[in-house]
Amino acid sequence: VVQLTDKAEAASKGEYRHYMLKEIFEQPEVLKRTLQGRISKHHVLEEAFGTEAKAIFDRVKGVQIVACGTSYHAGLVAKYWMESIAGIPCQVEVASEYRYRKVFVPDDTLFVTISQSGETADTLAALKEAKKSDYLASLVICNAPSSSLVRESDLVFMTHAGPEIGVASTKAFTTQLVALQLLTIALGRRHGLTEAIESDMVSALASLPEAVSKALLLDDVIKKTSEAFADKHHALFLGRGVEYPVAMEGALKLKEISYIHAESYPAGELKHGPLALVDSDMPIVAVAPNNELMEKLKSNLEEVQARGGKLFVFSDQADAFPNSNDVTVIDVHSVPETIAPMVYTIPLQLLSYHVAIVKGTDVDQPRNLAKSVTVE
Amino acid sequence: VVQLTDKAEAASKGEYRHYMLKEIFEQPEVLKRTLQGRISKHHVLEEAFGTEAKAIFDRVKGVQIVACGTSYHAGLVAKYWMESIAGIPCQVEVASEYRYRKVFVPDDTLFVTISQSGETADTLAALKEAKKSDYLASLVICNAPSSSLVRESDLVFMTHAGPEIGVASTKAFTTQLVALQLLTIALGRRHGLTEAIESDMVSALASLPEAVSKALLLDDVIKKTSEAFADKHHALFLGRGVEYPVAMEGALKLKEISYIHAESYPAGELKHGPLALVDSDMPIVAVAPNNELMEKLKSNLEEVQARGGKLFVFSDQADAFPNSNDVTVIDVHSVPETIAPMVYTIPLQLLSYHVAIVKGTDVDQPRNLAKSVTVE
Repeated sequence: VVQLTDKAEAASKGEYRHYMLKEIFEQPEVLKRTLQGRISKHHVLEEAFGTEAKAIFDRVKGVQIVACGTSYHAGLVAKYWMESIAGIPCQVEVASEYRYRKVFVPDDTLFVTISQSGETADTLAALKEAKKSDYLASLVICNAPSSSLVRESDLVFMTHAGPEIGVASTKAFTTQLVALQLLTIALGRRHGLTEAIESDMVSALASLPEAVSKALLLDDVIKKTSEAFADKHHALFLGRGVEYPVAMEGALKLKEISYIHAESYPAGELKHGPLALVDSDMPIVAVAPNNELMEKLKSNLEEVQARGGKLFVFSDQADAFPNSNDVTVIDVHSVPETIAPMVYTIPLQLLSYHVAIVKGTDVDQPRNLAKSVTVE
Repeated sequence: VVQLTDKAEAASKGEYRHYMLKEIFEQPEVLKRTLQGRISKHHVLEEAFGTEAKAIFDRVKGVQIVACGTSYHAGLVAKYWMESIAGIPCQVEVASEYRYRKVFVPDDTLFVTISQSGETADTLAALKEAKKSDYLASLVICNAPSSSLVRESDLVFMTHAGPEIGVASTKAFTTQLVALQLLTIALGRRHGLTEAIESDMVSALASLPEAVSKALLLDDVIKKTSEAFADKHHALFLGRGVEYPVAMEGALKLKEISYIHAESYPAGELKHGPLALVDSDMPIVAVAPNNELMEKLKSNLEEVQARGGKLFVFSDQADAFPNSNDVTVIDVHSVPETIAPMVYTIPLQLLSYHVAIVKGTDVDQPRNLAKSVTVE
């Protein structure tokens, strides 16, 4: 019945001008759905990963994630979480590279694929290849229940994002991040993650739908901000730590639907080359929640500003940045650090949407791209 | 005495218009120097890594590489080599990210830094951080004998590239690749790399200076080709497998000295987003030696072409590509696959140089950049 309702909903854009906008605004609801039955008040309910999950998770000593495009960015976020929160080594690779090279598989490694459609050709081929190697087991994080990846995997986590029609993935990404954080906690428990930290993380996840609703209120501000990109052909997206893959995803969205050549860098790499590109025609977008890297990022941004770059900073520390014509601060509300990647994704999605509107491109059907890449 | 001669040489551009061009053309000579005393007819002489190298290498089960900018790209090439040739797991990370996150250190891992100057601030800080962790030992691949990284590391491999004055690194990169391949062989020996393969790889390395000389003969062809970039503001650089980081380095060179926004992608990721950028204003550069990924890459390139993109293909299989107004094939001579990353780097360096000349930028002192990044 839920499926039917989903399809009926998906068939219409409702009050929204585009599927993409509708799907961006659906995120509080689908995030709630993805969390439902997967967490209790203080714990992750790991049965959500399948009946065999417990026995497999007990043995996992490392994680190999393989995915493409937006799902790859979700995997990169998870790497930071796995290593810093769960204390487990985690490698992430794009499927089209992974599947063609000789890979070293450490003992007791869980092979994780991420795909909205469950039909991504390179990811599916990588899974088939991996099944011939010495992986402990395979897990897919997927949004399509009867897909090939679901059929081929030992463990399955469904994201329940509902049908995603817009070619540029939005709600699939944030629900994938939730799935990956639940996995981080489930594995972390076995490697020293305390009950207290689990409880804090679970509380933060429970507050995520509301935090995302609040982030969506930035829509008007971002719509205004998007005008500054109307005549731009380039952009740099910067982040540090776990926010670097969030910046990558923000850049990819802008690329996909507005055709602006947006590229992302870990902010510390700026001085090693890309700073040469910076001038007043190159807007710089920074993802800057208040974490321990904030001061470092600020000093990177000062260099950019000194070179005439226009800055657009997404931060919960608006006061920390100088108020000037060259700096626009988008004031994001403070959230627990563990959910910041999902929350900061929202204004970046809105930015790409509104820039595309200003540019007059076909938001839901960007040129050259297909929704699911089912060919190699 | 060698040092003095080096300095005297370096002080003058000789017959060359720029230091960068001089340094590009010095590569056959410095590669020979870097190999001297490091290989015999059939073997790598691992003492080149220091007197303690043998005992340490006997224990290495994995490699963690940390570097910035161009040196980071050298590390990415090495990852492919380590895993596919030596059968050893290898992780690579930019120093400014590595040093600030909690990293999982597997047993018996060698910590490798790469830096031309030996003074790169983030890399040095990462090494200091790593020394507090459970790494087996540290090795630096460096071009400056009395530098901080050399002083702080257990093992040292000097690249003997001589002083590099141009801000955009050229000869440092190719000599780093040689160092990393020697390391791959030295470690691989202990993990099943056969005498026969070692001998083949050593022969290929011995032929590298001549192969590079031959690649330098492409200078005139590339100078002509560079005119096509005169009015361009963007470029995509594509590669697959070990040639992907070579494409990354090619894009970085173009960025650094011509201020063209060049970005690189593993070719298989094109369909997952960046293809939306492709139109007739977006030149696509492909690094395409004839290896097992050639057919896959060709199909990626056909998509690009179907969307109006102008292709510039560096390949030893000129006949494999359609001859048309939209496709320029730069005919690189065939070389053994193990040295292809060094050889294909040469025409990409020349391309960035000539495009910068056409654009009229300051080749040796690109805006905003310093030679050694000694601040964070």
